[in-house]
Amino acid sequence: MTVMEASGRCFGVGVGPGDPELITVKALRIVRTSPVVAYFSAAGRASNARQVVSEFLTDDQTELHLVYPVTTEMMPTGETYKAAMSAFYDEAADRVGEALSEGRDVAMLCEGDPLFHGSFMYIHNRLSARYRTEVIPGVPSILAGSAVLGTPLVCLDEVLTVLSGTLSADALERRLADADAAVVMKVGRNLEKVRGAVRRAGLLDRAWYVERATMMGERIMPLDQVDPSNSPYFSMVVIPSSLAPTR
Amino acid sequence: MTVMEASGRCFGVGVGPGDPELITVKALRIVRTSPVVAYFSAAGRASNARQVVSEFLTDDQTELHLVYPVTTEMMPTGETYKAAMSAFYDEAADRVGEALSEGRDVAMLCEGDPLFHGSFMYIHNRLSARYRTEVIPGVPSILAGSAVLGTPLVCLDEVLTVLSGTLSADALERRLADADAAVVMKVGRNLEKVRGAVRRAGLLDRAWYVERATMMGERIMPLDQVDPSNSPYFSMVVIPSSLAPTR
Repeated sequence: MTVMEASGRCFGVGVGPGDPELITVKALRIVRTSPVVAYFSAAGRASNARQVVSEFLTDDQTELHLVYPVTTEMMPTGETYKAAMSAFYDEAADRVGEALSEGRDVAMLCEGDPLFHGSFMYIHNRLSARYRTEVIPGVPSILAGSAVLGTPLVCLDEVLTVLSGTLSADALERRLADADAAVVMKVGRNLEKVRGAVRRAGLLDRAWYVERATMMGERIMPLDQVDPSNSPYFSMVVIPSSLAPTR
Repeated sequence: MTVMEASGRCFGVGVGPGDPELITVKALRIVRTSPVVAYFSAAGRASNARQVVSEFLTDDQTELHLVYPVTTEMMPTGETYKAAMSAFYDEAADRVGEALSEGRDVAMLCEGDPLFHGSFMYIHNRLSARYRTEVIPGVPSILAGSAVLGTPLVCLDEVLTVLSGTLSADALERRLADADAAVVMKVGRNLEKVRGAVRRAGLLDRAWYVERATMMGERIMPLDQVDPSNSPYFSMVVIPSSLAPTR
């Protein structure tokens, strides 16, 4: 397949961690000037990425709202789920590709960074061989976490380990026990499992819970003080550098 | 000590990976409106962070150029080096603190993100108990690396390991052998050591070398094709997600 020069460009746009001012100048320019703006969300919910840029969008822009067939919180596994998601991404890529083929640029909005844990890759994989694509990196949530904590995340020779809360308790514990500094993303309903692994790895006294970093309703507290019944999916656990003092 | 409300504010400003358009809207606002702008550099060299924002600075702003007593490339070790650097950071913090005490805001420019491998922490540690400080997170170089490669860095349950090229060959190999996806920063004169560790960890066929991502003179090539005599300190090795296809 060859890239179609007459077609529009597909931009994967990192909008940053939540504060609309933490979008990059480049991402903002592309969001403002793209005739088509696309984003994912769960059924019946607003897109977090769209909310970040909502003040910059105009009525002249076409919005492609790509609604997941299942919610992330359900986290189903197995072939039925995979097949449903694959068909969904095929259809989403078709809708984006249709706009590109008509010569219109598409800005795909991505929370944080487009290539660091995000759904953009499913569109990128399906379209990048046929259309001009460009990725605009963004500020990831993990660095919003260290910024609001005001604590160095990693320095000198330290190793940073970034984990998903969806890993097994054993995998989390093993990785954390070997970590200098670490961030666990996708905490939410995995909170008790993550906290247990942090405790067994001997890191509970260094671990912070961060929710909605840089957004309205931001919450920061020591991990051992969090109520597990009340943790959203986009919360994280930050275990900062041990070579620099924590606050 | 109590925070002095009448004094200026100390901002740790992440200016992003190099492309001036990859600064955040917030960082740009603070750089433009701060009466004092401070930055580190090696002796006889321009500051990379200042170069990123040079077009936005005006003659009305005071610049505090904080010049390291030794260069990073020398990477000396031992007590003499530590003492020299500690004295240097004490003096740098005094200069910044002086401006803050006079009621002037100071924007400390940081490449990438202020709390992710950077010298800002040495100022932050010395001043944050006395002055109002705020950290503005930035796009880190590692995400500029995956953006210019156009390859997902990490997805699903994958673990991301971020290493410093200053680690020992054995430590690098052990960490890489256990990594799903990895980035090695601070490559430069550590290139041969890093490449050997990547090879022994069985990852050479997935490893990319990225230099000056998003900047003039950007270079990307498979790690096994790099000339080791010609690698700057701010180059990196990226081993992207294995669950998403590389380009």
